[in-house]
Amino acid sequence: MPLIVDREKRRRKVAAIATKMIVRQGPDAVTVRGVAAAAGYSTKVISHYFKSKDELLCFVFRETALEAARRVRRLQRSEDVQHCLELLLPLDAQTRQDWRMWIAFWGRAAFNETFALEQHASAAMAQGLIRDLLDSSRRRGLLAPEFDVDLHSRRLLAAVIGIAIQAVLDPKAWPSARQRTLLRAEIIATLPRS
Amino acid sequence: MPLIVDREKRRRKVAAIATKMIVRQGPDAVTVRGVAAAAGYSTKVISHYFKSKDELLCFVFRETALEAARRVRRLQRSEDVQHCLELLLPLDAQTRQDWRMWIAFWGRAAFNETFALEQHASAAMAQGLIRDLLDSSRRRGLLAPEFDVDLHSRRLLAAVIGIAIQAVLDPKAWPSARQRTLLRAEIIATLPRS
Repeated sequence: MPLIVDREKRRRKVAAIATKMIVRQGPDAVTVRGVAAAAGYSTKVISHYFKSKDELLCFVFRETALEAARRVRRLQRSEDVQHCLELLLPLDAQTRQDWRMWIAFWGRAAFNETFALEQHASAAMAQGLIRDLLDSSRRRGLLAPEFDVDLHSRRLLAAVIGIAIQAVLDPKAWPSARQRTLLRAEIIATLPRS
Repeated sequence: MPLIVDREKRRRKVAAIATKMIVRQGPDAVTVRGVAAAAGYSTKVISHYFKSKDELLCFVFRETALEAARRVRRLQRSEDVQHCLELLLPLDAQTRQDWRMWIAFWGRAAFNETFALEQHASAAMAQGLIRDLLDSSRRRGLLAPEFDVDLHSRRLLAAVIGIAIQAVLDPKAWPSARQRTLLRAEIIATLPRS
């Protein structure tokens, strides 16, 4: 048991170091050698935990996506759609970091099947989150029984992605207020007027 | 005069070769040496037209964005919002290629100011296109005078980006019909019910 814990702990330590490198300079800057040096391990130790640089990058991508989903799930009890979805927008340092990483990964996913599969999984997870939010609103009678949860969860996710990418690549043109206003307009257009 | 034409022609030839390389393997695969070899020029000739690999990539990015804008502008006279915006979605081989390139460039833009500035310019151009479309609908009385063209052009652009990125990274989950349906839902939510 302690050995397994240690293994998981070391994987996370390695991933945390890789994350810092990615956030500073992008995924191109990450090398197994550089991560090993920063972690105080040999490159052999790193290869024990991650078979390749791509596997390490995919692990980082998955972990940041899972952590973002956990942040939304924790809040989901409050059930305010705007409030929950704002957690996915680059409105603070953490989510801005996440989005810069995700965009860099998507850039790779456009030309690499392994990264593309990670993107498919995280998109399905994000859409599932939003579907659950809308489903819960429907159960509470806030949405008509015939409300198309699948269609509108896709629409809201597309809006979040489109706002977030532009906001993180052009922060001056996308202050928090603009991101929130656009998301609000999208939600108003999605949900029936009350 | 012939010298200037020749210069422009050569720049375009070099850019076309780089574009093919990017489309096949992503921008990482492009090297000045590789482009020179494929063009039948020396690397010195290439550096005469593009100071660096980044300058060459930015030129390709700008040209594909301008060409996409021209496609929409040509159609703009028909003034059907859905039809015009569909030209921006990855519904055919050309736009799928464009989107894979743009996503790869954005991945770089997240960590590189030069690429970020190109993204700002292309986003402003795309929003301008959509604003012109909505302005024209407003002038023809299809939209109320108080219709917020700026807000809704931003919303539609965010939707196009969010749909296109997911569609190009996960084509199986995003057949053409799904892209069109989502865009249609977005337009219906934007424009007043007629």
